[in-house]
Order: sequence, then structure tokens, then C-alpha cells
Amino acid sequence: MQNPFFKNNGPYKFSEILNYLNLKFDQINNDLNIIDIKDLQNSKKNEITFFHSKKYKIAANNTKASFCITYANLQNELPKSCIPIIVDNVLVSTSVVTAKFYPDSVNDNFDKDVEEISNTKFIDKIKFGKNVLLGKNVSIGSNCMIGHNTIIEKNVIIGNNCSIGSNTIIRNTLIKSNVRILDNCVIGKHGFGFFPKHNRNLKYPHMGIVIIEDDCEIGSGATIDRGSMSNTIIGKNTYLDNQIHIAHNVRIGQNSIIAGQVGIAGSSIIGNNVKIGGQAGISGHLKIGNNVEIAGGSGVIKDIPDNSKVMGYPAKNIREFLRKNK
Amino acid sequence: MQNPFFKNNGPYKFSEILNYLNLKFDQINNDLNIIDIKDLQNSKKNEITFFHSKKYKIAANNTKASFCITYANLQNELPKSCIPIIVDNVLVSTSVVTAKFYPDSVNDNFDKDVEEISNTKFIDKIKFGKNVLLGKNVSIGSNCMIGHNTIIEKNVIIGNNCSIGSNTIIRNTLIKSNVRILDNCVIGKHGFGFFPKHNRNLKYPHMGIVIIEDDCEIGSGATIDRGSMSNTIIGKNTYLDNQIHIAHNVRIGQNSIIAGQVGIAGSSIIGNNVKIGGQAGISGHLKIGNNVEIAGGSGVIKDIPDNSKVMGYPAKNIREFLRKNK
Amino acid sequence: MQNPFFKNNGPYKFSEILNYLNLKFDQINNDLNIIDIKDLQNSKKNEITFFHSKKYKIAANNTKASFCITYANLQNELPKSCIPIIVDNVLVSTSVVTAKFYPDSVNDNFDKDVEEISNTKFIDKIKFGKNVLLGKNVSIGSNCMIGHNTIIEKNVIIGNNCSIGSNTIIRNTLIKSNVRILDNCVIGKHGFGFFPKHNRNLKYPHMGIVIIEDDCEIGSGATIDRGSMSNTIIGKNTYLDNQIHIAHNVRIGQNSIIAGQVGIAGSSIIGNNVKIGGQAGISGHLKIGNNVEIAGGSGVIKDIPDNSKVMGYPAKNIREFLRKNK
Repeated sequence: MQNPFFKNNGPYKFSEILNYLNLKFDQINNDLNIIDIKDLQNSKKNEITFFHSKKYKIAANNTKASFCITYANLQNELPKSCIPIIVDNVLVSTSVVTAKFYPDSVNDNFDKDVEEISNTKFIDKIKFGKNVLLGKNVSIGSNCMIGHNTIIEKNVIIGNNCSIGSNTIIRNTLIKSNVRILDNCVIGKHGFGFFPKHNRNLKYPHMGIVIIEDDCEIGSGATIDRGSMSNTIIGKNTYLDNQIHIAHNVRIGQNSIIAGQVGIAGSSIIGNNVKIGGQAGISGHLKIGNNVEIAGGSGVIKDIPDNSKVMGYPAKNIREFLRKNK
Repeated sequence: MQNPFFKNNGPYKFSEILNYLNLKFDQINNDLNIIDIKDLQNSKKNEITFFHSKKYKIAANNTKASFCITYANLQNELPKSCIPIIVDNVLVSTSVVTAKFYPDSVNDNFDKDVEEISNTKFIDKIKFGKNVLLGKNVSIGSNCMIGHNTIIEKNVIIGNNCSIGSNTIIRNTLIKSNVRILDNCVIGKHGFGFFPKHNRNLKYPHMGIVIIEDDCEIGSGATIDRGSMSNTIIGKNTYLDNQIHIAHNVRIGQNSIIAGQVGIAGSSIIGNNVKIGGQAGISGHLKIGNNVEIAGGSGVIKDIPDNSKVMGYPAKNIREFLRKNK
Repeated sequence: MQNPFFKNNGPYKFSEILNYLNLKFDQINNDLNIIDIKDLQNSKKNEITFFHSKKYKIAANNTKASFCITYANLQNELPKSCIPIIVDNVLVSTSVVTAKFYPDSVNDNFDKDVEEISNTKFIDKIKFGKNVLLGKNVSIGSNCMIGHNTIIEKNVIIGNNCSIGSNTIIRNTLIKSNVRILDNCVIGKHGFGFFPKHNRNLKYPHMGIVIIEDDCEIGSGATIDRGSMSNTIIGKNTYLDNQIHIAHNVRIGQNSIIAGQVGIAGSSIIGNNVKIGGQAGISGHLKIGNNVEIAGGSGVIKDIPDNSKVMGYPAKNIREFLRKNK
């Protein structure tokens, strides 16, 4: 995962991790350093991962992680190279450990270390409006514009020839070149991810970022949340109209066109050359193929293969929908 | 109704009220003071209420109000202790009288009495960004943060350990402790309530407030309107995702989870432990029970009993919906 | 089209236009001046128009334009007074020519020529908040209010007795009197109009404006885009609730009421006294008659005649919908 922003506070000793989880472990033959936390597929030797559902059995069988937070009844799916750490609630424990590795990824309080752009090195490099604020670890290319009252918080890289509107807030985001982001957007904030707990939910870390590829346009009033363990990505030359909501971990391909007020729920993957009409909604964890057309107002609740045209709620073949709904 | 903010400009003499309504009244034996205006159920002796539809007959039969704005054909439903005031349009007349008692509750022009937070007593008490403005009658607890360009207009109480984002506007709102409100929200403004009149609608007063209980999270771009004669309430530990609209007088229970772009129309009541998927809409004046799950994209147009799972438009039992829509 | 803002950079010689389009033209008997570009119906002698689909055959037969960008197979529909200019892609070529006449209408970078309102002649004429910015060519009537952080960019005329909220951005807009615009709105920006091109879409000019007639109210978080070749218009005494999206070229009549989160796609025309429930969506290029009621959550995909009540997706007669969906 391309992730230039969130600093890994590890490594932690195996015994430290057990301690954070309030676990007792009689014999630690070798108190290894654990250097990072990743998902089953991406983790490597000396890293820790998590496994909470049989759905991910194949990935568990093949994980290269040295440690895995899991349930007792799932531990036998792990290879011998991976030491199971048995807990009562895998996701909550994973959240606790992730927060140790990436403490900055849990909360999104406002960035208090910003300063007026006119006090920075960018004063002569870009065109900017009144009251523009820049955080630390911000890089901006040549020939860019940033509108009034816009706040570029920490951890933002902007390419060349970009135009950012007014009243927009961006953080933890990698913006390539020739990108236009309009007014009143909020990009790169923590996604809507937490473990529901009576009386006080537990937020989980979001150490993914937002990546906006070359030549994109993001309309006014957009909210694009950063990913949890992967990135939220808007592909090259994809255009978003106004008031669109893109949840965490969503990936949209190239040359796609998304009309006003569309919402895409978490972790869905949208192909290239996709057209989505106004107010359509796409549920989480779906795969929408290339060249798909989704009619305005549709509600998509299952995967859509390449080259399909769908409409309705639940969205189905557009001809079938229109025939049934004359 | 808990209402620390809107000042009652009464009492008014009975004769004054008649005068505001352009009514003639031959005999006023006893020109009593009228001390407040409330709905049928909550009004008491020496207060005025209103009664405009047979739907509210039982409440009218039992009202404790001393005066009631009503129609000629409804006046016999009132108890003898209540003097009817007969008008041509009950809601318009009620609006006129309410505006006399609560003149600040009719319009929402920007608060011109704000000042920079750095000129207030809060300068050393909380962490705040650039260009933060505070109105009169604002109280903020310990360990709070307020982001850049945020405007806390008059009549706001904030508890302890709260985090308010940037570019957010709050007024007439009571926020308890451990609450997080993200960026670009508008909270506590006048609801979308008016009497349609050809050429110029007549707005009615909104003397209710917004109450956000402990441990809530409100996502970016939310609009939460204050109530008209009751409060808009978000219950303890309820989480709202981005771009959500909560209309006037809505009450949401505890531990509920509401996904992105949901809209809840005026005066609906949502229970505890309710889950609402993205883009779902709930019509006005409905009652959604406890532990209800509403699928994303659904349109709810009738009451939903406790422990139900619904989907579709109009929303119905989720199994029935999915069976019919394979 | 009422259009006080976008300056026509013409006239251009016929030969110059051909040059911009990379066309060769052997004989130019008379290298005429072309003074403006308009659609088929509105263009006049010495103006240029475009014709790209048989749908517009009747308008083409009757155009008064002296020049027309079109396809070879459509050229015979034009009157003899109109010289055809044959191109490979009519809309792209039209976009190129329009951008020559109206160069300011293509892009919407932030207005860098604004200044603090306290440095302008309006300092004693209106009530305004902190950090209010005004662009060039802005006119404001008497008894107006403008909230904190609001940016009135260039090309805005505001009538009398208007109240503009905070954090709102307005440009290229004509606001009549007694209008209220609430917080966090974006009004008058370029619409979502472009010709899809692999790797880099081509935006087309938007030389229309937004017109908001007397006595309107626009709720918080609205996005109202200006028109491309016609204006976007909100009729007298029409009220919009929060989070509404109005696309380019939409025209809404008088005394209409539009609830929260509604979206109206490009070029649709809405009548007088229309009521639209929350979250309803209206597709582009439709005609919704007078006195129409559209239930909340509906998706309208065809024209609706006067005095109809519709519901559902696709929206149909409300009684029929409710009968079928018990």
C-alpha cells in the first residue's frame, strides 16, 4: 500500500503486544520484534495480521505473517510459520494493536500546526486566496491555485497544474497533476469505521490515505474518506459531480463519470469507463466491472459484471427493469 | 421542553394577543396575562395553545391551557376552563402569536455579535484553530478543541472532551460530553417550516433547540435543524456518517448508527440501537422502533415496529422484499 | 438570455473560426464577421450556431444563423441563408468556438481579485460578518446582510433585503430581492458539463448564469450550478430545503417547495406550485408541469403533466404506486 504519511511507531516485542491485549502467555521462547501490522494477504515475515471470519480461509492458509490475531476455532487454518494469538474479539484487538503501530491514524482532530500560506515557502510559488492554511509535510507542485479559506492540513502532496477551490479541507491525501477540486469539499478524513459498543463505540484506525490520480475533477461538497488498511483511490480522468460521498477503501477506475449526490459505501471497487447517474447508491464490498452504466437513482446491492447496464433498486438489467416498470 | 436559549418576551395581556391577530372581542371581563405558548399537551393555566385538526381531539379535551387558538367548528372540544380564540387560519395565527413570545426564533440571520475566540475568556481553556468565532451566551467545558473557521454562534453549550471540526457552524445547540462534530456542518438553524402563501411564504418560529447527547459523532457536511415547538435530539453514543440531513423535531435514540447521505424528515422519532444504511430516507412524523435495521437506499413511509428489518421503497420486511426482487 | 456577466470577446472573422477548428476552406468569397454564438432557435444573422442531432431538425430548418457547425449528413436541413461548417465532432467544435467568444466561461478557478468587504464602498451600506470577501462587478442593494467567511466572487448582483449566510460562495449570479441564502452553499459555479475523452475530458463553456427570483429561500449546503448556453433559474417565492443539488440549465417555477437532499439533473424544467419530497431525483431534460406533487424518494424519468401526483422509481401515479406496493 502506497502510504507516505502514517508513521509506523513499531517495532514492538511480541510480549509487548500481548501485554497491550491483556493476554497471558506462559512460554515466550523467542520474544521477537514485530515490525508492522497488515492484512492477511499483504503481511510478511515478522509482521502481525488478523483473521476473523471463515470467508478469508484461503488468504489465512497462505499468509506469510509471523503472528495472527484470531479466534480459537480458526487457528488451525493458519500455516505453521504463523503463531496464533487467541482473543475474544478479533476486530477490537486488531484495532488496539493497530493503534499502537499507527497512533496518528485513530482520531482526526483539527490540525493545530497549520500556518498562513503567506508565511511559508509557497508564497511565491503558487496562486492562493485569503486565509489559506497549510499544515506540516505539505508539498505543492508548480502552477497550482488554492482558493480562499481552504485548509491543507498535514500529509498532503499536490502535483502540478492543480486547482483547489475555496472552503475546502484536505488531509492525508496524494493528489497527482491537472486535478481540480472544487469548493466546500472534505477529503482525507477518517472513515466511518468503528466497533459498536454499548455506551461508547470504539473507533478503529485509518492508516490508509486518499489518492486522486491525474486529470480528475471533484465537485463541490464532496466527502472522500481515507482508507482503513488500504487506500481510497480515484482513477485518472474520473469526474465527480457535486455532493458525492466516497467512503473508506473505495477504488474507482479511470475515465469514469459520476453524477451528483451519488454515494459509494466502503471498500467497493468500481472499474474503468463506468457511468453512474445522479443519486445512485452502491453498497459496500462490491465489485463493479468496466464499462458499466448505472442509471440515476439506482441502488446496487450485488457485483455487476463488465459492460452491463443496470437500473432500479435492487439494480438489475436495465431492459428488464424498464419492461417490468412501464 | 428543555430550552435554555430562547427568551420568552411575554407575558401579554389577552387584549394584546387579540389585537395582534386583528380580532375584535366585545367583552373582555378579565384581561388576563398570558404567560407562554405551548402545544395542547404541555400548556398550563394562564398559557395559550392552538388546535387545528380533529386528529388532536383527545389532547384538546384535556388541555390545561387557559386560551386556545382554534376554528369555530372545533371550539366545543375544548374544556370550559379554556377560552377559544376563533380565527380563519389557526397555524398562521399561532405563528403570529409565537413570534410575539419568541421573536428571536423566527429568523436566522448570521450572528453579528460574535468575536474572535482569542479575545474571549476561552483563550487559555481550549485548543482552537485560526479564525474561530464565538457568539454571546456560549459555554465550553474542559479539554475541548475547535477547528479553523468554525463559528459557534449565540446560544451554544458544549460539555467536556468535545472535538469540533473546521468550517462548521453551530447555534442554539446543547452538546453534552465526548462529542465529535466533524467539518462543514450546519447545526441548530431554523427548520424548513413555513405556511405556503402565494407570493410570499410565512415562516413559523422555531423555538426548539438541538441536543446532542454524550459520546455522539456527527460526520462532515451534516445539517441538523433545531425544532419548532420541541427539540431535535441525537441520543447518546449515536454515530452519523457524512452528508446526513436531520430535520426539525427529529428525535434519535441511543447507540444508533446512521450511514452516509441519510435524510430524516421532520418530527420522526427513531429508537435505540437502530441501524440505517446509506441514502435511506425516512418520511416525517413516523415512529421507528428499537433495534430496527433499515437497508441502505430504502424509503420508509410508515411506522416500523421494534426489532424489524426493512428494505425497499416503500420499505417492507427485508425477506419479503428480497424474495420479490430476485 | 439575460446575461449581464460573460463578456463576448468577438467578433471573429469566418476565416479565424475555420482556423481555430483546423479546417481548410478553399473559397472564402466574403470573410464575414461572426458576432456571437447561440443555439439554433436564438441565433440571428451574422451569428454562428450548431446542429448535431436530427432531433433538432425543425429548429435547424428555421434557424436565422448565418453559420452552423454540423455534420455532413445534416447540412441539407439548414436554410440557404446558413453556411454549414462540416466537422468531425459537432459538440467538441462548438465548445472550441464558444470558448473563443466567452473565454471566462470555461474554467472556475477561485477569484483572486476579491477584497475584504471593509475595504469597499459597501462598508456602510450593509451588515456583514468577519472575513467577508467581494469580487469585482458586485452590486448589493439596501438592507442586506452577509455572514462570516462568505465569498461573493465576481459577477454577482444582489437586490434589497437579502440575507446571505456564512461560509457561502456565490459567483455569476443575479439575486433579486427578499431572498435568503443559508450557510455553506455554492452557487453559480460551472456545471458538470464536458465531452468525455479518453485520458482527458474536454470541459465545455458555461456562459449562462444563475437567477434567483424574489422571495426565495435556499437551504444550507445547496449547490446550484450556472447554465451552459441558458440560465439556471429559481422562480419567485420558491423554497429549497438543505443539501439540494440543482444542475445547469434547470428552471424552477414560482411558489414551489423542494424538500431536503433533492437533486434535479441538467436542463429539466419544473413548473409553478410544485412540491417535491425529500431525496427525490429528477432526470435531465424533463418537463414537470404546474401543481405537480412528487413524493419523497421518487425517481422521475419522464415528463409529468400538470396537476399530477407521482411516487416511486420510476415515478408513476401515486394511487397506482401505493396499490401495487401495499
